[in-house]
Amino acid sequence: MEKEEVGWCLKDWICDKDDVLFNDSVLQQIDCTHLSCYMNYSISIKNPGPGLVLRSLHKNDYDKGYMTLLGQLTRTGDVTKERFEAQFDAMKQCPGIHYIMVIEDVSNAIIVGSGTLVVERKFTHNTALRGRVEDIVVHSNYRGRHLGNLIVETATVLSQKLGCYKTSLDCLPSLKPFYEKFEFENTSVIFMSKRFYD
Amino acid sequence: MEKEEVGWCLKDWICDKDDVLFNDSVLQQIDCTHLSCYMNYSISIKNPGPGLVLRSLHKNDYDKGYMTLLGQLTRTGDVTKERFEAQFDAMKQCPGIHYIMVIEDVSNAIIVGSGTLVVERKFTHNTALRGRVEDIVVHSNYRGRHLGNLIVETATVLSQKLGCYKTSLDCLPSLKPFYEKFEFENTSVIFMSKRFYD
Repeated sequence: MEKEEVGWCLKDWICDKDDVLFNDSVLQQIDCTHLSCYMNYSISIKNPGPGLVLRSLHKNDYDKGYMTLLGQLTRTGDVTKERFEAQFDAMKQCPGIHYIMVIEDVSNAIIVGSGTLVVERKFTHNTALRGRVEDIVVHSNYRGRHLGNLIVETATVLSQKLGCYKTSLDCLPSLKPFYEKFEFENTSVIFMSKRFYD
Repeated sequence: MEKEEVGWCLKDWICDKDDVLFNDSVLQQIDCTHLSCYMNYSISIKNPGPGLVLRSLHKNDYDKGYMTLLGQLTRTGDVTKERFEAQFDAMKQCPGIHYIMVIEDVSNAIIVGSGTLVVERKFTHNTALRGRVEDIVVHSNYRGRHLGNLIVETATVLSQKLGCYKTSLDCLPSLKPFYEKFEFENTSVIFMSKRFYD
């Protein structure tokens, strides 16, 4: 199959607001009825659940517990607000690369879910884009509501809408059945890494 | 181990020249004597071989057969010079993300090797950088000269010098022994992908 028609372009995703990572109004345009993992439960991108909103990372999400949430996923270290904002600004200066989406419980102003789509530009495959799904996490108090499904599906559909020829992720073998629901395949390709520090 | 001292910062890598992807003068500062895959043959970053130079991708490498070389790696499609230049410019607008290095045979102005380091910014691991080695290819007429070793090692050491907490790659199982030479490990983590088009 040739490259599909891409409905959005980078300019749709650039957000002039300094405190918003990407223009997430386009998330609302994703048609949930075409999700590969059909959600036969009452949540969607527009309605993640009572009191919840799914949106781009904001610069003030540091104050809403974003780093605490990431601490439920992996090691974060003791990141100051200034360091957080510097990394946010660095991402913002490279539009079209880092799409970090979060779910906020607006009733208590806490970030309760997050996932990242990272986009790489290539010269192969007709100067393609390639997506990678990273750092999926749902707050322990909010599990069992299918929010992880929603984030993974949104990141995956987003990558397709942006025009990625493929999207990949690396995970523990125990999560293979979870990602297979979204039509990710574990082919013969292997994942290798070299760690310089923790 | 905590984050190692990082000798370089992004500004060292930003290149004001429109036709050079990144400031590759820093490549010359990589000390080959500390390469994990000790090269007991007479090539190095400074001297990849008679008539060969290792450097950043240049905008005019399209005219030096860069896309033809990539065609020895995977599907490239029929990319026009204009499309190539547009993708080059898009990468250039996001400094610190795409480090594409090439080996040119200056005797005939042909690109004979290439490899890419892609850098992702994270909020985890003390607002870390993470590297990915991608698209390693050596021209069929130039194989057996350890140029693939040189490119992989340069990309890996570069990622460490930039401050990446880890660097990864995905490959066919047959290439596992090759990447193990550079101290990449195949842990229990698995690689999954979803392809939208070829």
